Amino acid sequence: MKRVKLIVAYDGTNYHGWQIQPNGITIESELNRCLKDLLGEDIKVIGASRTDAGVHALCNVAIFDTQARMPGEKISYALNQRLPEDIRIQRSEEVPLDWHPRYRHSVKTYQYHIYCAEFPLPTVRLYSHFTYYHLNTEWMQEACQYFMGEHDFKSFCSARSSAETTVRTITGIHVEKQGDMITIEVSGTGFLYNMVRIIAGTLMEVGNGVYPPAHVKEIIEACDRQQAGPVAPARGLLLYSYDFLEE
Amino acid sequence: MKRVKLIVAYDGTNYHGWQIQPNGITIESELNRCLKDLLGEDIKVIGASRTDAGVHALCNVAIFDTQARMPGEKISYALNQRLPEDIRIQRSEEVPLDWHPRYRHSVKTYQYHIYCAEFPLPTVRLYSHFTYYHLNTEWMQEACQYFMGEHDFKSFCSARSSAETTVRTITGIHVEKQGDMITIEVSGTGFLYNMVRIIAGTLMEVGNGVYPPAHVKEIIEACDRQQAGPVAPARGLLLYSYDFLEE
Repeated sequence: MKRVKLIVAYDGTNYHGWQIQPNGITIESELNRCLKDLLGEDIKVIGASRTDAGVHALCNVAIFDTQARMPGEKISYALNQRLPEDIRIQRSEEVPLDWHPRYRHSVKTYQYHIYCAEFPLPTVRLYSHFTYYHLNTEWMQEACQYFMGEHDFKSFCSARSSAETTVRTITGIHVEKQGDMITIEVSGTGFLYNMVRIIAGTLMEVGNGVYPPAHVKEIIEACDRQQAGPVAPARGLLLYSYDFLEE
Repeated sequence: MKRVKLIVAYDGTNYHGWQIQPNGITIESELNRCLKDLLGEDIKVIGASRTDAGVHALCNVAIFDTQARMPGEKISYALNQRLPEDIRIQRSEEVPLDWHPRYRHSVKTYQYHIYCAEFPLPTVRLYSHFTYYHLNTEWMQEACQYFMGEHDFKSFCSARSSAETTVRTITGIHVEKQGDMITIEVSGTGFLYNMVRIIAGTLMEVGNGVYPPAHVKEIIEACDRQQAGPVAPARGLLLYSYDFLEE
């Protein structure tokens, strides 16, 4: 028996998210199907980050256990030949049998992309949220400071979360504009359900002048989901990097 | 009667190119269909650049004549509501009745994107050509100098071209690498059939060490299509900008 770790990149456009669903194809179900085809065993991968429908990833992490004799680092090549072209393993390797991505300290970085112009641009439509509202990125950047560090992020958590505590730590957050594309980059040691998309929705309200940057402090302190902005659409969200810390 | 000019952006993935085909949907046929729906007239747009199947554009140019009373600059908004989301008008305006994009001096800039890594990346797959060969971009950049200026580009023209002369002028060409993405940018006053894709295919052979940069000079001088590299795949090509010169 050995444990294999996969780094998985995907375009989430055509999937019902990571996690297996009764109706609809998911990243997890495609990985299980193709691993069974490759290794001849019933494989159940465990994903580190269960991204929502339509969300993209450069580097999600999954593990599975197998009796197969194929060397761990060869699995990426063989699996990619079976996967659809919108899912691609970036690396595969053997890890100790007790290595589990959800029980290790890690820093995840998400990017949220907003294409801000008079009309949508077809070649970026699948990987960004479009808005024709002018967004002031200086205001958005100013608001970022209030998210930094450890806070109770209850205002930034969708109701159907089952998290025991809503305290999380954000280790980095900033806003950049390149041409008509605005990128919000958020790093943290853990995120609540929909947290990054609600942060993005709230920063868009700041950029739009709905409330001043400093109001974000009050939204956080309120611990009330109703105070924060809407959940920004899934297509703008990308799991950008995933770093496991040495222990 | 008035003439309207459209700036058209599209994701070419799902189209059989610009030009109307007996079988298959094209950018031109979609524009004609939606303009008829909007204006109630049989409209036939004329495109400046008849891009191939799978090629993308930020700014192709089309004109059409209409009796409609809708102001030219409003047509973009109304037409975008009817078009599929992979085609979007970026601007519409009235132009003189004798304004014709194919009979004006212009400079077009194309970008060719190559994603160069061990495995493909799903989120860039539709807009770049993937290769796992290492490409030396310094060699590619060195080869660019030989393309600059006016030359007979017969070696870089696919056989089914009907061009009267194969002399063309390249006004700018360079190669850039950002992370794993290589971009070839080529500007010129006119291009032969498949010319940019054959230049890209040839530069990839240079980057790959198949021949040295200086051999590009011999390929041009040979005036023989067999001497140049292959036609690089359509998905990597993007019509990036289109500038009409004052006369």
